Amino acid sequence: MAERIFGDIPGIPEGSEFENRFFLSQYGVHRPLQAGISGSQAEGADSIVLSGGYEDDEDLGDIIIYTGHGGRSLESGLQVADQQLVKQNLALALNCQRGLPVRVVRGYNHKSSFSPTQGYRYDGLFRVDSYWREKGKSGFYVWRFRLIKIETITALSVVHDDQPEYGTSKRITSTIQRVLRNTKLATYVKELYEYQCQVCQTQVMTNSGLYAEAAHIQPLGRPHDGPDVIANILCLCPNHHVMFDFGGFGIADNLSLIGLEGMLFAKPNHRLARQYLQYHREHFLLNNW
Amino acid sequence: MAERIFGDIPGIPEGSEFENRFFLSQYGVHRPLQAGISGSQAEGADSIVLSGGYEDDEDLGDIIIYTGHGGRSLESGLQVADQQLVKQNLALALNCQRGLPVRVVRGYNHKSSFSPTQGYRYDGLFRVDSYWREKGKSGFYVWRFRLIKIETITALSVVHDDQPEYGTSKRITSTIQRVLRNTKLATYVKELYEYQCQVCQTQVMTNSGLYAEAAHIQPLGRPHDGPDVIANILCLCPNHHVMFDFGGFGIADNLSLIGLEGMLFAKPNHRLARQYLQYHREHFLLNNW
Repeated sequence: MAERIFGDIPGIPEGSEFENRFFLSQYGVHRPLQAGISGSQAEGADSIVLSGGYEDDEDLGDIIIYTGHGGRSLESGLQVADQQLVKQNLALALNCQRGLPVRVVRGYNHKSSFSPTQGYRYDGLFRVDSYWREKGKSGFYVWRFRLIKIETITALSVVHDDQPEYGTSKRITSTIQRVLRNTKLATYVKELYEYQCQVCQTQVMTNSGLYAEAAHIQPLGRPHDGPDVIANILCLCPNHHVMFDFGGFGIADNLSLIGLEGMLFAKPNHRLARQYLQYHREHFLLNNW
Repeated sequence: MAERIFGDIPGIPEGSEFENRFFLSQYGVHRPLQAGISGSQAEGADSIVLSGGYEDDEDLGDIIIYTGHGGRSLESGLQVADQQLVKQNLALALNCQRGLPVRVVRGYNHKSSFSPTQGYRYDGLFRVDSYWREKGKSGFYVWRFRLIKIETITALSVVHDDQPEYGTSKRITSTIQRVLRNTKLATYVKELYEYQCQVCQTQVMTNSGLYAEAAHIQPLGRPHDGPDVIANILCLCPNHHVMFDFGGFGIADNLSLIGLEGMLFAKPNHRLARQYLQYHREHFLLNNW
């Protein structure tokens, strides 16, 4: 089996069209003939096909909310069980953690104004910006992946081209929409804890003083739309911020930690709203924790 | 003294012109009449003026490499001593760590094709992307700050406007140029250490497995232009990655840590080039460490 290629397939520019999945596979754009996600849970996902299978997908063109794999009945196609963060779903999660790009193909049968009218079209590289689980329209848990288009400037490319695929470092530009956080509130919470992590009490020292991060419990921005208020903000060290955002631990309503020993340290004048802790556990923690 | 405002001054749009520094100060765009940097080392910097003082400034329009304050002779204007990361320089460093925007004003006497021909012009908000020290043209150390323009879409603003300044969270878009790293090399180094930090041996656990970061010793991208090779990459936990990037510790040629106890853990088949360690110490560590 050929090595998995992360990035463009040499000779296949964005916009290339394919009559059917057999050709898509032959050209190496998306190798599996049936599965929507091509990838392994050790390496990550190299490509996906949007082909109208999932009722929960959302396609905004440059931003796609993609639903993971699993839990559907072979006969009816309906969601009949919770999805797990394993196999191809875990592969896409690794793309997020490792910054690996994924090729996106849209099929004629994908319900979106961005789909081709026939066949399949290679629509370029996306990055996996974030992932979480939620109850789908069916009532069962699905894993959701937020994909954002990577815009490459070919005109300006300052590329050393000894390796054709993702193995090369390139300069790229991309237009990002991000939430400008309320730095006043973030600074307030960090100063309240004197830049000590609320989980481990670590203070990170840099050349310009102590460093801590303000972590939103229910994330800001689409689709979570958590509020930018003190009751939704924690003061964490970078390690516990990464762990929290990627569901490495959760916080119970009584502030005991789930997945880690001990309790969250919280000052009496910093009241965390239980609904945000609940939202985080619901969307980021694995079932078995 | 009025509260320091981070962000646009209400009623003063980007492009506003001012005859002299007195008016610039009266309108609150840049309050000090002499100093190039307005800020405090507790709060950060709210504005800077580019006015041709420093021989080392570089102005690419949307990207500015700005030279810090201090070490110049009052009489000759020449650099006669090293700059320190204190006062207004430390204020700009805090902007970087806390994500605070800084107002940028260009003066007629600033040597750049982006300067106005007379007076002073408010050129909008920039973020402080990174900072480091280097030997300036004079041979003395100066601190340098990489500023990147923040593009705000006013047309699309989904803003709740109860607070006029930076205290509000807004959605913004910005066009960023970034270096797409070589994820293959990064993954190789992380797997070599089984996702254990080379400083503290921590493994960060998430819902999709172990997490570590690949840290470049001599940074990628302008102006450092470090190479994307294994001899320039460390496997670090997020805490030690932040500390390393912000000069919280350095690594001596014999791999003992500077600013922290102990030694860097390095496998025999992972040879770090001494020139990159030297580059990092030179550009990111404080003098007194």
